[in-house]
Amino acid sequence: MDGCPAGLKLDLDAIQKMVDRRRPGQSPLTTDRKETDRVEILSGILDGVTLGTPIGFIIRNKDQKPADYDALKNIYRPGHADFTWETKYGIRDHRGGGRASARETACRVVGGAIAMQFLKHFGVEVNAWTSTIGPVSLPEDTDLDYDLIYSNDVRTCNLKFAESMSRHILTVREAGDSCGGIVTGMVRNLPAGIGEPVFGKLPALLAKAMMGIHATKGFEMGSGFKSAAMRGSEHNDAPAILDGKPVVSTNHAGGTHGGISNGQDILFKVAFKPVSSIAIPQTALDKDGNAVELKIEGRHDPCVVPRAVPIVESMTALVLADLILMNKLSRI
Amino acid sequence: MDGCPAGLKLDLDAIQKMVDRRRPGQSPLTTDRKETDRVEILSGILDGVTLGTPIGFIIRNKDQKPADYDALKNIYRPGHADFTWETKYGIRDHRGGGRASARETACRVVGGAIAMQFLKHFGVEVNAWTSTIGPVSLPEDTDLDYDLIYSNDVRTCNLKFAESMSRHILTVREAGDSCGGIVTGMVRNLPAGIGEPVFGKLPALLAKAMMGIHATKGFEMGSGFKSAAMRGSEHNDAPAILDGKPVVSTNHAGGTHGGISNGQDILFKVAFKPVSSIAIPQTALDKDGNAVELKIEGRHDPCVVPRAVPIVESMTALVLADLILMNKLSRI
Amino acid sequence: MDGCPAGLKLDLDAIQKMVDRRRPGQSPLTTDRKETDRVEILSGILDGVTLGTPIGFIIRNKDQKPADYDALKNIYRPGHADFTWETKYGIRDHRGGGRASARETACRVVGGAIAMQFLKHFGVEVNAWTSTIGPVSLPEDTDLDYDLIYSNDVRTCNLKFAESMSRHILTVREAGDSCGGIVTGMVRNLPAGIGEPVFGKLPALLAKAMMGIHATKGFEMGSGFKSAAMRGSEHNDAPAILDGKPVVSTNHAGGTHGGISNGQDILFKVAFKPVSSIAIPQTALDKDGNAVELKIEGRHDPCVVPRAVPIVESMTALVLADLILMNKLSRI
Amino acid sequence: MDGCPAGLKLDLDAIQKMVDRRRPGQSPLTTDRKETDRVEILSGILDGVTLGTPIGFIIRNKDQKPADYDALKNIYRPGHADFTWETKYGIRDHRGGGRASARETACRVVGGAIAMQFLKHFGVEVNAWTSTIGPVSLPEDTDLDYDLIYSNDVRTCNLKFAESMSRHILTVREAGDSCGGIVTGMVRNLPAGIGEPVFGKLPALLAKAMMGIHATKGFEMGSGFKSAAMRGSEHNDAPAILDGKPVVSTNHAGGTHGGISNGQDILFKVAFKPVSSIAIPQTALDKDGNAVELKIEGRHDPCVVPRAVPIVESMTALVLADLILMNKLSRI
Repeated sequence: MDGCPAGLKLDLDAIQKMVDRRRPGQSPLTTDRKETDRVEILSGILDGVTLGTPIGFIIRNKDQKPADYDALKNIYRPGHADFTWETKYGIRDHRGGGRASARETACRVVGGAIAMQFLKHFGVEVNAWTSTIGPVSLPEDTDLDYDLIYSNDVRTCNLKFAESMSRHILTVREAGDSCGGIVTGMVRNLPAGIGEPVFGKLPALLAKAMMGIHATKGFEMGSGFKSAAMRGSEHNDAPAILDGKPVVSTNHAGGTHGGISNGQDILFKVAFKPVSSIAIPQTALDKDGNAVELKIEGRHDPCVVPRAVPIVESMTALVLADLILMNKLSRI
Repeated sequence: MDGCPAGLKLDLDAIQKMVDRRRPGQSPLTTDRKETDRVEILSGILDGVTLGTPIGFIIRNKDQKPADYDALKNIYRPGHADFTWETKYGIRDHRGGGRASARETACRVVGGAIAMQFLKHFGVEVNAWTSTIGPVSLPEDTDLDYDLIYSNDVRTCNLKFAESMSRHILTVREAGDSCGGIVTGMVRNLPAGIGEPVFGKLPALLAKAMMGIHATKGFEMGSGFKSAAMRGSEHNDAPAILDGKPVVSTNHAGGTHGGISNGQDILFKVAFKPVSSIAIPQTALDKDGNAVELKIEGRHDPCVVPRAVPIVESMTALVLADLILMNKLSRI
Repeated sequence: MDGCPAGLKLDLDAIQKMVDRRRPGQSPLTTDRKETDRVEILSGILDGVTLGTPIGFIIRNKDQKPADYDALKNIYRPGHADFTWETKYGIRDHRGGGRASARETACRVVGGAIAMQFLKHFGVEVNAWTSTIGPVSLPEDTDLDYDLIYSNDVRTCNLKFAESMSRHILTVREAGDSCGGIVTGMVRNLPAGIGEPVFGKLPALLAKAMMGIHATKGFEMGSGFKSAAMRGSEHNDAPAILDGKPVVSTNHAGGTHGGISNGQDILFKVAFKPVSSIAIPQTALDKDGNAVELKIEGRHDPCVVPRAVPIVESMTALVLADLILMNKLSRI
Repeated sequence: MDGCPAGLKLDLDAIQKMVDRRRPGQSPLTTDRKETDRVEILSGILDGVTLGTPIGFIIRNKDQKPADYDALKNIYRPGHADFTWETKYGIRDHRGGGRASARETACRVVGGAIAMQFLKHFGVEVNAWTSTIGPVSLPEDTDLDYDLIYSNDVRTCNLKFAESMSRHILTVREAGDSCGGIVTGMVRNLPAGIGEPVFGKLPALLAKAMMGIHATKGFEMGSGFKSAAMRGSEHNDAPAILDGKPVVSTNHAGGTHGGISNGQDILFKVAFKPVSSIAIPQTALDKDGNAVELKIEGRHDPCVVPRAVPIVESMTALVLADLILMNKLSRI
């Protein structure tokens, strides 16, 4: 991780803790692969304080079972990157844990955990939570308690809905199938003025970060796709006069104007597709273009959304840390 | 525009034509500002062939009316970048046509028009069209004729819906209000293998490009946000056996796996918010934090979507041209 | 020019004045091409203050004589980029003022003039001067008066040597030949801590900037190539004790250690080759590989060094402005 | 190491062998630190073939003796980055092997060794050798045998001069002092057309790469600083007619014109200062600004030049590999 300023006091346990939240095998909702995911810091930190130099680290994969993937050597799994990867490079590491695997996001969470401590230094708070699992969504007017997020297996902020979301995932798993969902992201206490105009807008960099996470299919800021059906007089987050004072009570914009933060909360949503690896038999193509019946065995999540929550937080934190640093150069 | 390889024969008229499609004042649906938007090529092209050096060009703004903006000098318009811009830089050019203005996209269309000719060289076709205006959407099963797109003022590919979309925009304009909509983008004949893994995925770069266009609020690939409610067995674009041969008939993925094109059409949607400048009086804040009544006069579009169509095409073409060039470096 | 922070008050006349110093036709030592080189600012500045957005500008070439170059269409001039350029791109603009021409540096001087005003804001002073013309060099112990630099045609800081340097250039010109020389660069009042370690070292970025100027053949910091023959005990700029206080009186390092400024003056030298375009007949190759006799007529400088002085200053200022901005991100 | 195309068959032993050449403790001319420098490849290679994904590797430092550096905690060693580093970041890892240490170049050699195999694939050969140690230089007309380079401790290509160079280093070491020198670099069989114009010229990128190596003070292409004293008629590498055929027999340019390779050998020189860590007592400053007597004990090289040879080769190979890849994008 390059670019972290010197002099930031880091809580190294908090980094490991955040990586643990992404780690599989922690709840009945996830794969039972037992990746220990220990972060070994190699450089850039002295006595818990950043040196301003790259922070090197390594996470060894201790639970690889390459043999699990032997049967897949010549088959392109539907919904997977097998075919595209091989077409691009002419060569592909078919074993699990390769470059196309979501395991790669473990490193992003290390970076994100550091970025979150950087942001905390400036008072900025990042949160993400599961807002939809399959057909179950948090209604707009539900009570949200952000402190609950990591207290429940689906990582949402309302225990009643956590319960029904969990139930859906287990039902789907039992059917040998998988399901998708939506993660909502929020940034509080971000000062106005963060984001670079034209090609470095805050929503653009966030969108890039989110659409670069495995299995994401959509990104929206504030009222998002709903705004297409709204009128300007309704969508504009104009101040109302309350007790003689102007108050902005809506946040359709999601916290930015012209790509730059306006001081309100940053609000966005990320859609995740259902996991492609399912136990239900499917038709697949092999290397020679023949159709074969595929029944994926391995150890797979029925739904990536719960484990994606810390990844969304991490990518958000990395984008904002970069933009806060860039903003130091806005004025003479 | 830097990075265009040498030896590409360019149709310069096609560049101007594409810029004209973005230009205001062409239909009753848009502002009647009369920007002529003549593109003057300064460098990088000799006898219509690219030299491999930067293609410099300039588009002079011939119809500026800075006086139109005088009343806005000390007012932060709701939904606009006035406040964020001024907070960031401590100084702001309050006159129209400044850096935060969508006028800036004229240059992107020049770049996009060149990129489209580059793509055509490889047989790749880029199209975009209006698929939603306010409450009017093209149904999933409508006939689409891409040749119709620029034959109607809303830039959609079905004349019946063009009619009702137009009517909605005019109604909204009459009310002194504005409306939003959705643009669908499509890339045909893109070979498999385009897109860079991890931080340069095709959907990630497209998302960044789209969310960097003015007034965009959302981006989705393929089944997008709908995929959150689907199951893996339903979402996987698995081949079916038809007449003994495997056929992939769905495209939920939108044409990529693992961030790399899979040979199917690239399909995505971009949500645009309703225009922030409306004639209906609104409450706004001035520099001193006082609430003032604001009635925006100037010359503004009631809906950006029709003029956004060539911008979406341009940004798509630029992203794909970059990725096709990058892919030249994938194999030894 | 992108990246200039907002709020910098600019003296626009000073920009034009610096561009004029690079402009040909100003003294008997240079070509008599009459390029007026008027800088037209297009964007990024309001009432003389930077807006934080890209500063666009254009310099039109008013004295092109493409016909001068007709005879050169199929000939590769010795010492020129004709052959390499054509080999790379398969196409070449053979007329003067193209992308390979040193005319391109006019833009660098505009950027440099802005960067110098940025540096002045922080008290940093950049100077460059001619220290060698052909066989004539300023001795190590000569009096240098930096205020004299632009008062004499060769741009050196000692009038006696200016005289003999000028004489050499005129002699060489009369012979139909050309000569090279050395420019010395100096940065004063640069605080310690500027420069990025590993791949962004101050000397590395300066070297890249200088070796990217046309006709440069060498770059050295401080004692440079002479240091190869020195011993560590001699080369180390160690403090001596003078009146009981430590004083560092040498500057073999040239003002950096580990790629980062140490608070002493930045000192470096740049070697320029003799101009390749000479009137003396030479053998050249044409496109078909035949040897032809070439007698270059056009209007060419007998020595680029005097006009290179403001270019060296400009590139130095641009590198340091970047590094000062980057250094804002070094500490939390 | 990112950006290496897929499908390159790598000789992993050759990588380790090149790293060994940089490793200390191999001859009486270097420090007797015993760094084993074993390269452990972590990713990007399958069965010896590159996958197109980043090639991760780690070299553990097995012979750290941090205690050696305890006495230096509060002292700024003359000629070292101690003061500049601490001023920049406000914090400094005073122990050996930190980020400012030349140990960092071990990684560059791994990258360079891979780049050299990439270049070999295209027939391009990179060599570097010691051409000067203190007062001993290879004369212009000496016989050079590039196969001898790694057969002698100073890494030069003439055994007679190897002998006298070695002797000088040992003499200097005995005196508790150190010496500098010059490394010459050469690239053979590079096709014409490699190098990017304006800001990515081959000599500019080489200069940056070389001036980013520890202890370098100067860089020159071809005739370099000597060209300042030459005339154009002498410096131009013009063809002569020999037996009726044009022959270019000089290479003052060093193999590029306009920043782009011309098909001749790339030739350049890099000056290294004498090592700053010497046993002879020196005056140094401590953190409080007091002068103290410093007698550096540790284990240091009397001359970095022999070990710098593989580093110069590595950085050269990395620059050229990048430029060859970039050149794939020059033409449609």
